[in-house]
Amino acid sequence: MTEAVRKAVTPTKAAAAAAPVVYVCITCRRAGEPDSAPRPGALLAAATERAAFGTEVEVRPLRCLANCSRGPSAALPCSGSWTYVFGALDVDCADALVAGARLLAGAADGVLPWRGRPEALKRGLIARVPPIGFEETDA
Amino acid sequence: MTEAVRKAVTPTKAAAAAAPVVYVCITCRRAGEPDSAPRPGALLAAATERAAFGTEVEVRPLRCLANCSRGPSAALPCSGSWTYVFGALDVDCADALVAGARLLAGAADGVLPWRGRPEALKRGLIARVPPIGFEETDA
Repeated sequence: MTEAVRKAVTPTKAAAAAAPVVYVCITCRRAGEPDSAPRPGALLAAATERAAFGTEVEVRPLRCLANCSRGPSAALPCSGSWTYVFGALDVDCADALVAGARLLAGAADGVLPWRGRPEALKRGLIARVPPIGFEETDA
Repeated sequence: MTEAVRKAVTPTKAAAAAAPVVYVCITCRRAGEPDSAPRPGALLAAATERAAFGTEVEVRPLRCLANCSRGPSAALPCSGSWTYVFGALDVDCADALVAGARLLAGAADGVLPWRGRPEALKRGLIARVPPIGFEETDA
């Protein structure tokens, strides 16, 4: 993946004011495996809440990031930043999600840095979407 | 995919003020095929610009939605709405992207409706991410 950091018009981001958030899909099953209760997504959400306990990171369980074929899924949003969707996660990725949310919140350019990014957030990237109002200046 | 429409805290959306936008990745190749110039993503962007000509839909070419293994890729963002990422697109999907952007901009609940959604945007859905500030109320 290129994910090139390029000169671009990105809406102003007040890094200091950007709260780290992790969305975790609680309805995600593991692709190709029979249904189970609690679902792997719910277990991941609970593990991420435990990992975030005592930090400034907010974990928000939700239903369906539409990454159903490659779940469990989570997303890192941040006002003024790109939003990142990850898949093929498990409970062992909880710390990585919390670390990734903090890394994104601290990124002045709104791009989740590759350097220092937890391994689970390198191999599990599904897609990223630009902040509202983003325009590539030289495309 | 469930993509359930549920009771949720969604930031206020002024549907009338939400401009339809299509982001198209111009660096996307077709997975498993040799590189070519212009790239399939650039061809899709040009086709989408032609399809949007004379409409209120704004087409914004960009680089890398990180959906590289399932491109060509496009995203439909809309202030206060969920953002949708699509893959496995080709130039024949240009009209569908323009129609989808208008459908999303007109959706008061910020969710791209299934009914009336172009076929290419049903089968090609990669992921969706909630608007900044979204909270599921019963998760």
